[in-house]
Amino acid sequence: MKWFEDFEVGMRFKGGQVQVSEADIKRFASEFDPQPFHLDDAAARTTMFQGLAASGWHTAALGMKLAVEMNAYGGHPMIGLGVDNLRWMLPVRPGDTLRIEGEVVGVNPSKSKPQGVVLVKYTLYNQHDEAVYTFTPIGFVPTRPK
Amino acid sequence: MKWFEDFEVGMRFKGGQVQVSEADIKRFASEFDPQPFHLDDAAARTTMFQGLAASGWHTAALGMKLAVEMNAYGGHPMIGLGVDNLRWMLPVRPGDTLRIEGEVVGVNPSKSKPQGVVLVKYTLYNQHDEAVYTFTPIGFVPTRPK
Repeated sequence: MKWFEDFEVGMRFKGGQVQVSEADIKRFASEFDPQPFHLDDAAARTTMFQGLAASGWHTAALGMKLAVEMNAYGGHPMIGLGVDNLRWMLPVRPGDTLRIEGEVVGVNPSKSKPQGVVLVKYTLYNQHDEAVYTFTPIGFVPTRPK
Repeated sequence: MKWFEDFEVGMRFKGGQVQVSEADIKRFASEFDPQPFHLDDAAARTTMFQGLAASGWHTAALGMKLAVEMNAYGGHPMIGLGVDNLRWMLPVRPGDTLRIEGEVVGVNPSKSKPQGVVLVKYTLYNQHDEAVYTFTPIGFVPTRPK
């Protein structure tokens, strides 16, 4: 178990990976982001995506899955107020395998509660080692019990 | 059809609604955010959520669904570089009905392309008119063809 005091800026984490299929992309998009470039390859070819691409929110959900499995907070749940610097850099394609890395970019103790904010900047890379997505949750970690 | 020139700060939009079930919450969480407070009501009661709550990324995906349906960009696709000011204010519970509103908070013409960024701040409200989630995509809208 880690505690707030155990984190410092510059710490790095590596996590697992997940593959995304064409069926996954279409299923997610049909429920949450029904736009042609996420649903139909032929339609997607005529758009700026130039082929079927995962919804950015599908990529974001896969980023959360990989982050939860990586467990940078060392046993504490991933709970946060929100997210900063959420950016999609490249499309995620059918068959892509995504892996996650994290780096602590901020540690801010709470003035009123036995916890602090640990900012981990997560980045997802595809199988070509291209960064496709990044997000920095504003997450809480408890301070060490006294 | 609307174009970049048709947007100005302060314009407001109202959209539709969606209901989220306990089964929806557990299905999304088991695939993308398998933490106890999103999977099991009894386990969730012992956490800060004090009962089953939707994954924040499930709420985010529902926010995208409602935003796509509302179509603030007037016929143009919702494509963006990323999202600013993504914040979860209150838990989303089984049976909640969420609705969306949007407000233009920024319009920034591109210097190099026939388009501009239209920043729409979207807010999701539950059936008690409590704001539960907000996000501001960095989205592009083409300028009017000449």
